[in-house]
Amino acid sequence: MKNFNDLADYSALEIEDLISLARRLDEKPEPKALEGKVLSLLFLNPSLRTLSSFQAAMVRLGGGTFVISPEMSIHGLESRSGIVMDGAAAEHIYEAIPVIASYGDAIGIRAAAKVENLQSELLDKDFNELTSLVDKPYINMESAINHPCQNLADWKTLNDLDIPSNGKFVLSWSWHPNALSLSVPSSTLQMAAMRGMDVTILRPEGFELPEGIMDRARKAAFLSGGSIQETDDRTEAMEGARVIYVNSWSSINNYGKKANEDKFKHELRDWCVDNAWFDKAADDCRFMHCLPVRRGVTVMDEVLDGPRSVVIAESRNRMLAQMAVLHRLL
Amino acid sequence: MKNFNDLADYSALEIEDLISLARRLDEKPEPKALEGKVLSLLFLNPSLRTLSSFQAAMVRLGGGTFVISPEMSIHGLESRSGIVMDGAAAEHIYEAIPVIASYGDAIGIRAAAKVENLQSELLDKDFNELTSLVDKPYINMESAINHPCQNLADWKTLNDLDIPSNGKFVLSWSWHPNALSLSVPSSTLQMAAMRGMDVTILRPEGFELPEGIMDRARKAAFLSGGSIQETDDRTEAMEGARVIYVNSWSSINNYGKKANEDKFKHELRDWCVDNAWFDKAADDCRFMHCLPVRRGVTVMDEVLDGPRSVVIAESRNRMLAQMAVLHRLL
Amino acid sequence: MKNFNDLADYSALEIEDLISLARRLDEKPEPKALEGKVLSLLFLNPSLRTLSSFQAAMVRLGGGTFVISPEMSIHGLESRSGIVMDGAAAEHIYEAIPVIASYGDAIGIRAAAKVENLQSELLDKDFNELTSLVDKPYINMESAINHPCQNLADWKTLNDLDIPSNGKFVLSWSWHPNALSLSVPSSTLQMAAMRGMDVTILRPEGFELPEGIMDRARKAAFLSGGSIQETDDRTEAMEGARVIYVNSWSSINNYGKKANEDKFKHELRDWCVDNAWFDKAADDCRFMHCLPVRRGVTVMDEVLDGPRSVVIAESRNRMLAQMAVLHRLL
Repeated sequence: MKNFNDLADYSALEIEDLISLARRLDEKPEPKALEGKVLSLLFLNPSLRTLSSFQAAMVRLGGGTFVISPEMSIHGLESRSGIVMDGAAAEHIYEAIPVIASYGDAIGIRAAAKVENLQSELLDKDFNELTSLVDKPYINMESAINHPCQNLADWKTLNDLDIPSNGKFVLSWSWHPNALSLSVPSSTLQMAAMRGMDVTILRPEGFELPEGIMDRARKAAFLSGGSIQETDDRTEAMEGARVIYVNSWSSINNYGKKANEDKFKHELRDWCVDNAWFDKAADDCRFMHCLPVRRGVTVMDEVLDGPRSVVIAESRNRMLAQMAVLHRLL
Repeated sequence: MKNFNDLADYSALEIEDLISLARRLDEKPEPKALEGKVLSLLFLNPSLRTLSSFQAAMVRLGGGTFVISPEMSIHGLESRSGIVMDGAAAEHIYEAIPVIASYGDAIGIRAAAKVENLQSELLDKDFNELTSLVDKPYINMESAINHPCQNLADWKTLNDLDIPSNGKFVLSWSWHPNALSLSVPSSTLQMAAMRGMDVTILRPEGFELPEGIMDRARKAAFLSGGSIQETDDRTEAMEGARVIYVNSWSSINNYGKKANEDKFKHELRDWCVDNAWFDKAADDCRFMHCLPVRRGVTVMDEVLDGPRSVVIAESRNRMLAQMAVLHRLL
Repeated sequence: MKNFNDLADYSALEIEDLISLARRLDEKPEPKALEGKVLSLLFLNPSLRTLSSFQAAMVRLGGGTFVISPEMSIHGLESRSGIVMDGAAAEHIYEAIPVIASYGDAIGIRAAAKVENLQSELLDKDFNELTSLVDKPYINMESAINHPCQNLADWKTLNDLDIPSNGKFVLSWSWHPNALSLSVPSSTLQMAAMRGMDVTILRPEGFELPEGIMDRARKAAFLSGGSIQETDDRTEAMEGARVIYVNSWSSINNYGKKANEDKFKHELRDWCVDNAWFDKAADDCRFMHCLPVRRGVTVMDEVLDGPRSVVIAESRNRMLAQMAVLHRLL
């Protein structure tokens, strides 16, 4: 393994192998595996799970980390090309990234979508520019369009729960006050398709995922024996569902236009998962969410606090999945 | 040991045993004891000693930590029940705490008193709600009413200095611009009572500690052969004192009413320990304070910088005491 | 080695020995060398390289760190003597520094120049006051007038690049919007002089370094067989140069008077290293800078991104040089 950027870079077999390793490291700790090894962590956006779980993962393997975020560095970081830096920013990413990378054996980078320019973000241009400055193994800790650590953790969670690989997986849009990026829905769709699941994307009209994302997922589903459907009918979607994976994302047509988006989704506040919605599925259906989640907005307490919610298990699997990735990378 | 929440949960014998372990770990380091182990650290209030000493403690035992504080997490943390989260906070403690705990082998939590609601804070309701979300061993890094790591460090400091277990221990109120919580005075009183000391609470009228706190301490004193007195007379209090332990706390009657409190203590600025006050005790009397301390406000430089001040030794004992607790917990 | 405060405290032989150790630790890691050891890190100014490289260095040697900066501690730190602390600051450095030091086996302190009082800063008064509070080995992570970790890293970089010890070293002033301190130019001059290089200080009139700094460097050059010249002529300076080491610093006459300084250097914006300037030297001349550097202001992209720029190597050598220092100190 050279980098860990996109789950789609691996075969289902390779992924299952990583998950086995994650499980083994959970059961049989290896506190000397990465002795004296350093993971550089660069956060261009705030984080709780990613920040914590990577630090914990390295300690468990006997190594360590350091964290850089713009608030901590010297007066913020400039990222524009060809710029005359006579403003506040005292350092350019062109130096900062190689320097940070040079202190580690690998680097994790979080640079989430700005939700401004759909075409650029679908191509992950910003993230690719950052990683082009790195000559070490890197880990995508969430970019505009990818979140492979979350995907690997979710796959493991599905395995842990014995959700059949051909079970029905509902990827559902939910209401959210902000216009969120496509990284989780896109990469989760791909994950479920690669795992062979019967995926139903449940979303109001106007919240279709980009065609390129859909195409890639359809190909993955074809290869894995899975399938991909779309609907805006909650009853239909929930029928036979083994998992409802909830997230919010910006509509493509209003991408980067917050005022339009706000207006467009104004009537959709009932896209908040409550028991009436969740109970349309059978009792063995699980509620998944990558967190953070807004209570009373995206999901009601009754669902999130219920026995079928597995969000904490998903989060813990972030650490274990990342330990497997780090073990392979280093 | 399951958790470390309140010094009163342990017998004097168990505490002496922890202190012996702390001393042994100081003299004979065990840098492999907690290899690959992770302590999660959650700070809902700022910290210097606690933050530093827990990180240092884990490194010395071969493990590691990660730190989460609201400023670093995603847009702050919500803590109200049944809330519709459409404001700034993107994450609820109901998810954040279990997630943070899930990455560690134990978790330390600091959630100091808000100094708002006396009854609720005496019951440590907020802190108990937080720990109810944790299924790992936890350490109280200061709650509304407890500060057991400080208490254990102070007990060790008293032992290190050969202060007799039945020596006179003056717990004195001091002036402070803010209305401070009861955690240090209450738990320090209990510590001194459990150690068998002859405790004198020296405070202006109106700054009596709550009856429940006093009752508990009197029982502990009865069992240990110690005693508890109260006075507002500095000369009387200092006579024969082996230790003056200084702190400030809010008056019960004005608890949560800052303006009233300010008025009430307006005339008390002379409750600042200077040589004239300190010298009322014999030369072997020690000055203790948990830090941070305001110079010229709570204590004069002449006392704090004098040879009888042991505040730095107390602080160093924080690390050693915590190493013993961590060694036992993990 | 007791402390690491000033490169001038060591002989060239001792420095070469440290560099050999740095190289050995790079080639043959020693992840158990500092097992269970703690380096306290106190940053009174923001940092990227220093923060990252010290944390990484300790992990690579098997130990760990904790970081304290005023933003994280309780309401900032007071540093004035004899003060009545009834403002915002709740803690004085008189307690904070000894406490922080007490948790580590050594302490690194960054307290850069305020660029206010030249005489005081030349004597490093603030930094010396801080270290007078420490009873552990300390490392100067940049003070008003010293930056020994940078100097050691730069010396190693010169060695790595096979720059002859008597090669021509141009220390050049550059334009910068802020009035910067003398720590890097002063200590870099000393470093190059001690290494035996033929140093040319290239600066506009008015940007001479203080006489005391020059004297000390001349003595070092005399002992090492090097030399020191000064000029404001770029063509003359660059002729035969093996290195141009660029930095900005405040003029002595306007030290602490920002408005005067701004006016004084108003016409000097062309002191930005571009190809026309850089190409006055031969093709084997290297561009050095301690970073952070302002693109388009101090140096043009064409130089910084060119093959003769070695700024990233310099930065990586920070970590390696510091590993050697830590190995010796602990």
